[in-house]
Amino acid sequence: MTSLLILNGPNLNLLGQRQPEVYGTTTLSDIEAMSQAKAASFSVGLEFKQSNSEGEMVDIIHAAKGQHDGIILNAGAYTHTSIALMDAVSSVELPVIELHLSNIHAREEFRHKSYVAKVAVGVICGFGAVGYELAVEAMVRHLRASE
Amino acid sequence: MTSLLILNGPNLNLLGQRQPEVYGTTTLSDIEAMSQAKAASFSVGLEFKQSNSEGEMVDIIHAAKGQHDGIILNAGAYTHTSIALMDAVSSVELPVIELHLSNIHAREEFRHKSYVAKVAVGVICGFGAVGYELAVEAMVRHLRASE
Amino acid sequence: MTSLLILNGPNLNLLGQRQPEVYGTTTLSDIEAMSQAKAASFSVGLEFKQSNSEGEMVDIIHAAKGQHDGIILNAGAYTHTSIALMDAVSSVELPVIELHLSNIHAREEFRHKSYVAKVAVGVICGFGAVGYELAVEAMVRHLRASE
Amino acid sequence: MTSLLILNGPNLNLLGQRQPEVYGTTTLSDIEAMSQAKAASFSVGLEFKQSNSEGEMVDIIHAAKGQHDGIILNAGAYTHTSIALMDAVSSVELPVIELHLSNIHAREEFRHKSYVAKVAVGVICGFGAVGYELAVEAMVRHLRASE
Amino acid sequence: MTSLLILNGPNLNLLGQRQPEVYGTTTLSDIEAMSQAKAASFSVGLEFKQSNSEGEMVDIIHAAKGQHDGIILNAGAYTHTSIALMDAVSSVELPVIELHLSNIHAREEFRHKSYVAKVAVGVICGFGAVGYELAVEAMVRHLRASE
Amino acid sequence: MTSLLILNGPNLNLLGQRQPEVYGTTTLSDIEAMSQAKAASFSVGLEFKQSNSEGEMVDIIHAAKGQHDGIILNAGAYTHTSIALMDAVSSVELPVIELHLSNIHAREEFRHKSYVAKVAVGVICGFGAVGYELAVEAMVRHLRASE
Amino acid sequence: MTSLLILNGPNLNLLGQRQPEVYGTTTLSDIEAMSQAKAASFSVGLEFKQSNSEGEMVDIIHAAKGQHDGIILNAGAYTHTSIALMDAVSSVELPVIELHLSNIHAREEFRHKSYVAKVAVGVICGFGAVGYELAVEAMVRHLRASE
Amino acid sequence: MTSLLILNGPNLNLLGQRQPEVYGTTTLSDIEAMSQAKAASFSVGLEFKQSNSEGEMVDIIHAAKGQHDGIILNAGAYTHTSIALMDAVSSVELPVIELHLSNIHAREEFRHKSYVAKVAVGVICGFGAVGYELAVEAMVRHLRASE
Amino acid sequence: MTSLLILNGPNLNLLGQRQPEVYGTTTLSDIEAMSQAKAASFSVGLEFKQSNSEGEMVDIIHAAKGQHDGIILNAGAYTHTSIALMDAVSSVELPVIELHLSNIHAREEFRHKSYVAKVAVGVICGFGAVGYELAVEAMVRHLRASE
Amino acid sequence: MTSLLILNGPNLNLLGQRQPEVYGTTTLSDIEAMSQAKAASFSVGLEFKQSNSEGEMVDIIHAAKGQHDGIILNAGAYTHTSIALMDAVSSVELPVIELHLSNIHAREEFRHKSYVAKVAVGVICGFGAVGYELAVEAMVRHLRASE
Amino acid sequence: MTSLLILNGPNLNLLGQRQPEVYGTTTLSDIEAMSQAKAASFSVGLEFKQSNSEGEMVDIIHAAKGQHDGIILNAGAYTHTSIALMDAVSSVELPVIELHLSNIHAREEFRHKSYVAKVAVGVICGFGAVGYELAVEAMVRHLRASE
Amino acid sequence: MTSLLILNGPNLNLLGQRQPEVYGTTTLSDIEAMSQAKAASFSVGLEFKQSNSEGEMVDIIHAAKGQHDGIILNAGAYTHTSIALMDAVSSVELPVIELHLSNIHAREEFRHKSYVAKVAVGVICGFGAVGYELAVEAMVRHLRASE
Repeated sequence: MTSLLILNGPNLNLLGQRQPEVYGTTTLSDIEAMSQAKAASFSVGLEFKQSNSEGEMVDIIHAAKGQHDGIILNAGAYTHTSIALMDAVSSVELPVIELHLSNIHAREEFRHKSYVAKVAVGVICGFGAVGYELAVEAMVRHLRASE
Repeated sequence: MTSLLILNGPNLNLLGQRQPEVYGTTTLSDIEAMSQAKAASFSVGLEFKQSNSEGEMVDIIHAAKGQHDGIILNAGAYTHTSIALMDAVSSVELPVIELHLSNIHAREEFRHKSYVAKVAVGVICGFGAVGYELAVEAMVRHLRASE
Repeated sequence: MTSLLILNGPNLNLLGQRQPEVYGTTTLSDIEAMSQAKAASFSVGLEFKQSNSEGEMVDIIHAAKGQHDGIILNAGAYTHTSIALMDAVSSVELPVIELHLSNIHAREEFRHKSYVAKVAVGVICGFGAVGYELAVEAMVRHLRASE
Repeated sequence: MTSLLILNGPNLNLLGQRQPEVYGTTTLSDIEAMSQAKAASFSVGLEFKQSNSEGEMVDIIHAAKGQHDGIILNAGAYTHTSIALMDAVSSVELPVIELHLSNIHAREEFRHKSYVAKVAVGVICGFGAVGYELAVEAMVRHLRASE
Repeated sequence: MTSLLILNGPNLNLLGQRQPEVYGTTTLSDIEAMSQAKAASFSVGLEFKQSNSEGEMVDIIHAAKGQHDGIILNAGAYTHTSIALMDAVSSVELPVIELHLSNIHAREEFRHKSYVAKVAVGVICGFGAVGYELAVEAMVRHLRASE
Repeated sequence: MTSLLILNGPNLNLLGQRQPEVYGTTTLSDIEAMSQAKAASFSVGLEFKQSNSEGEMVDIIHAAKGQHDGIILNAGAYTHTSIALMDAVSSVELPVIELHLSNIHAREEFRHKSYVAKVAVGVICGFGAVGYELAVEAMVRHLRASE
Repeated sequence: MTSLLILNGPNLNLLGQRQPEVYGTTTLSDIEAMSQAKAASFSVGLEFKQSNSEGEMVDIIHAAKGQHDGIILNAGAYTHTSIALMDAVSSVELPVIELHLSNIHAREEFRHKSYVAKVAVGVICGFGAVGYELAVEAMVRHLRASE
Repeated sequence: MTSLLILNGPNLNLLGQRQPEVYGTTTLSDIEAMSQAKAASFSVGLEFKQSNSEGEMVDIIHAAKGQHDGIILNAGAYTHTSIALMDAVSSVELPVIELHLSNIHAREEFRHKSYVAKVAVGVICGFGAVGYELAVEAMVRHLRASE
Repeated sequence: MTSLLILNGPNLNLLGQRQPEVYGTTTLSDIEAMSQAKAASFSVGLEFKQSNSEGEMVDIIHAAKGQHDGIILNAGAYTHTSIALMDAVSSVELPVIELHLSNIHAREEFRHKSYVAKVAVGVICGFGAVGYELAVEAMVRHLRASE
Repeated sequence: MTSLLILNGPNLNLLGQRQPEVYGTTTLSDIEAMSQAKAASFSVGLEFKQSNSEGEMVDIIHAAKGQHDGIILNAGAYTHTSIALMDAVSSVELPVIELHLSNIHAREEFRHKSYVAKVAVGVICGFGAVGYELAVEAMVRHLRASE
Repeated sequence: MTSLLILNGPNLNLLGQRQPEVYGTTTLSDIEAMSQAKAASFSVGLEFKQSNSEGEMVDIIHAAKGQHDGIILNAGAYTHTSIALMDAVSSVELPVIELHLSNIHAREEFRHKSYVAKVAVGVICGFGAVGYELAVEAMVRHLRASE
Repeated sequence: MTSLLILNGPNLNLLGQRQPEVYGTTTLSDIEAMSQAKAASFSVGLEFKQSNSEGEMVDIIHAAKGQHDGIILNAGAYTHTSIALMDAVSSVELPVIELHLSNIHAREEFRHKSYVAKVAVGVICGFGAVGYELAVEAMVRHLRASE
């Protein structure tokens, strides 16, 4: 069975508590539930993880190889600074969709740049929790188109 | 009834003929049909337009006010150079989703910058024609969440 | 009789509807009336135009040659990106005053740069609709001083 | 009675002697006379000052608080380098119009930047001595509109 | 029969009137006649067009596909700002020669950059009207070498 | 009882061994003792931590929420590169004072930039170990002023 | 007896009147009183000065040599533009602490740069009037550590 | 006995699997064997480590002090972003050689910059696995020359 | 009789051997023959030289004064770095056409800049060996127009 | 009789006390004596002034007009920041030689830029007090050559 | 028999005399002897050259084609400015190793950039004369691996 | 006997012919005569050379070691691009004065930067041929002060 990994980066564990005027009150558990439901509707498996550590995120991406068919990556603040995550994504040769809750283009200048996006299939940002559902659908359709 | 406008910018009329290794063989008519079907599945109306002229695109955005509830804008090359389109979007005070067929972050440096994105709800790029379906869904859900 | 052209660029047709906290509630028709009255008080003729298209604005500036003695140009967003308008102004060898409703220096960085200003007589910005009256007076006095 | 301050910065005392091809032969006294006449035509008072010292200009702006209702500031070369004048203008919370005899956008690159303009109501440049009359009118109308 | 398109951009309709110290007194009609004569000497057809509108230029380039075998493009001021023209040229997969009357490298810094040149066969600039004859010859020889 | 967290970043565990000409011979234990004494003098609690890992520092900042009333953060080299720590500080909505042993403005250019400082109450640098005492006092007085 | 100079730069004379949302309502006299009390608590003398003039501030720093043992310098807007103050500080070879009421790193980009900081012992910013007390203590301890 | 540490950074654990067209098919174990053999040929000890975590790499470098005489550091993607690793290297005052499998100067612009190189003895890049042998020899000779 | 100098810079002696996918298989001797034939067809003399040395190229340009009426300069890599060649061209006050075999705008960024072009009549690039014939014709016509 | 003004800027009054390793132990009085002797040897008059205030320096330059035939200006730190001094020099239309004791090109990057030098006859730097003698001679010879 | 060329650039002839604190006291003759011995140990031939002229270095690289199998290039200061050497290296299609005695990354900013490195196999820097031996070994192993 | 070398760079052999409005009609022979006379007046020897080749200039500087006591270097256009000349000057450890006929600060931006100046005693520019006399005197006095 097709299987997806959704990997969330630093500070996303606080979702629902942190700056609700920017990110809303939905928690990461709520989002996991929504994502699982969406994946189930396509009959694909889904693992949902979060880490505040760049090195641990690299480990998780490495481990996805052979276990998952695609990665949805909300790398949070590491999006803008981590070449290591970009290299990890290149290494495992799995399709990756970059995801952000907020519209990073409408925020500070230093959030406009992404290393991961250079090696991603595509990017979805600005739709809050709904973005996770869109990303699951986008990945499923991408995988099916590539079969 | 809720109604959407999908507005396509310069060179998108050539879709399916132009650099198929980047954009695939789907034509803009194919994409319109897919988008109409998706909109119909949500019971929302959809107008689908294309123009090669920045000024005409400004006119079309102005005209959307009062006729449509949201705009999906694939501004093509004007994305990266047009402050006028950004101002038009701000003027009409309709939610806008920025859409690109290709992943602009994986292309030339000058395609990484977007004026429209600064005033958009969100951005979807890299999913080819599927991106139009994702954008229709994203807009419908955005509009319903804002009711 | 001395004759002036006031040419307004993209999105200015929406004046009075668009972001009133920045531009106020006066419409472009109101401004035309104020400008006509001001011109009449100096016994000079005035044509008042608006276009959302850069190419059409170039055409209008070309056509001004021989018909008008000076141009007041509120090029809107094209101010910051159009070398073609700058060249058009240079071509017709008519004095041009650059005009903006808002103080462009107090807005986003990308609105601080102007190509047209390099070939203009002077610039007036930040006085809303009153700026049009000041510009009419400034142009009339400039023309009289140059006689 | 409404009262205005016109404050002129470094080197403007030499007006009429200095580079007449750029600034004309009108002296600062001539300009004061024109400005007083204009102010009188609106029945407003006017104080007209000049200083070559940035610190003294800060002092004069501070002293304007309570004595004047608006400041017309031709800060000369300090326009482009002085954050202290910008802060002084912010401190006294009086409306300020930035004024230049020449069109600073048609001169050297380093004259295109202005700190004061960021906190000014608006900017008028390129009209020589006439600019003072326009600025007086602009300020009077700004003050009346704000009443 | 081999056929060429020469497409001229904004402000070139004024040729012969505009800044003759830079561009000379030859009109665009004179240049068309010279270009037609040169093309005839090679027994190739030639269509000669001008537009002030970026969008219309995109349309003309699109229409060239199937009608012409090569495009000589003097995009004027749009050379330096238009990604849309660059994309149009890429789309139609016809060889393009970029042409300028003046030596753009000896003019203002902002005229040194060209998007179109990135996808052109070559560039000719600085030879005034003679450049059109050189470009016709260069294109004919390029087409014959590619047969 | 009011409680503070002092969090030290990478390489600060080596204090007293590392480049004593820059940082002196005081160890981190010495500094903890001084800080505890200072906190006790104000009758506030103090937890004192160090980590070389950016991800672990994010975890520690998250955990401070609910346990501590303010954070004194010497993020070491992560100060200049970590958006994740900046976001962590924003998330927990606790007041943060940025602290450095050395005067970062007198060192290499790349040490002049700080992400954390953008969301901090204030910054203290250059006073060596004494800076910790100053920071404890500054935080206590900040908290008391905010009550 | 050890003696300190606190020197305040442009616009600080307006403290308590100017933008209280940024700087609070405390006046410079209040701050002088607080600073004198703090200095007295350490049995050190204190001179407290303010000037809006860069040149006068240079004079005051020169005069401090031989009269004072350390300088606390809140150079206001001159912090970011004055190489002359930096040189003055270097010349007199007295320890200097740079002080700001607000957190300059959380304000406009052009306030992030400091020439004086390159030659200062350290920097304290963001603590309002309390910062003066912290700076007095920091200087006293710095002087005692250097004895 | 002289002892060396070879420390490998993020993604190097995947060597032999990852982008073989760039890095070849040799695994990190193969490289360890080659390095051990080379070290043995010089009768020096060698510890060989890998970590995906920046913080853990800092810890490993700290721990090398007293155990090893020199460090060969292939910091992978952290080379270009980590000031913390640079500080760690400075702290332990052991000679460090920076090593890369590929020629970083022939890759993307963002891989040309290195913080660690500023404090390294030297740099070797572009020789694949052979580079490890060269680095072992270079370090041994460096250590012997410094005796 | 009118006489031209064609001067070729570094590495052009290898033409036909070097990267034929960029420059083709034509040798510099072939090009000299083509250029001589073209010059003969206009009844003008032609000297054809090549040097790998910037200093020798300066000498050759100096020597052209009095011997030749115009210079066609393919300065190769020195185009982008040599102010000395630009000064040599200015010194001899002969018309110069800058020539390149390849389209330098479609190659690496550092090949887009030219010092020589600032003082040249015009530039021709991208037409391979044919460019030499075009340049000979362009120079002859330039010289005849200037008579 | 020909008369020169030597004007010294901020901090130069401290000469002989300040950073003797950079500037030597000669005082400004010593330099005045040397300069007077040198001027006397050419039978020209000399006024020698110093000010720490930019505004006062502008005043002194203005006053030189009519009294002096040339100005030798060591503007100290204002060299690098003052457009007002540059304008003052332009205004009075007297020849100016820019002078520095130290070689500003061998010091910090921000001391490499000079506004005054743009409008000066020439620049002399790096020769300490001897530079004043050289500048007096250079000015006398410049004035005599211009007679 | 395999043959190598070692080519040394400007100022390297002075080795052993020049700045020994940076480069040591070993002369270029010493290095040639060491290099010859190393080459002999691998049974490969070696030619060792030095030139202060960029043009002559281009000539030497051209001449290497057919005579040598690989080039070790210590281009000295030309490393950072010469595109012509980069092109020469590309032209001859021989493997090149870039070599520097000192660690260029630990020196001035303008020594961090290398054109040659973009087309080299790899880079070795910072090991003084030992670097030549390492480079010989690296080249021999590179050539053997490519057989 | 003390001996000086004056070394002139590219294009200076044309002096008196080249752009006389910038450099005057004096030839390099005239300047040599003036310089010899000046040197003789101080009883110092003088060698006067010119070369258009950067590499030859490096050779001449090397050869100066042991023959001359100081170098006056007018490196012409190589001033702004040659790190090799800067290194040559450093290598020979002779004092160097950088000299220019024109005021390079009043010319194009790319002539404002100098590598040689970073290692020179001082710089003299803008005084035409007189500058050579000033430089001879400056060097003699520098050498005498250093005895």
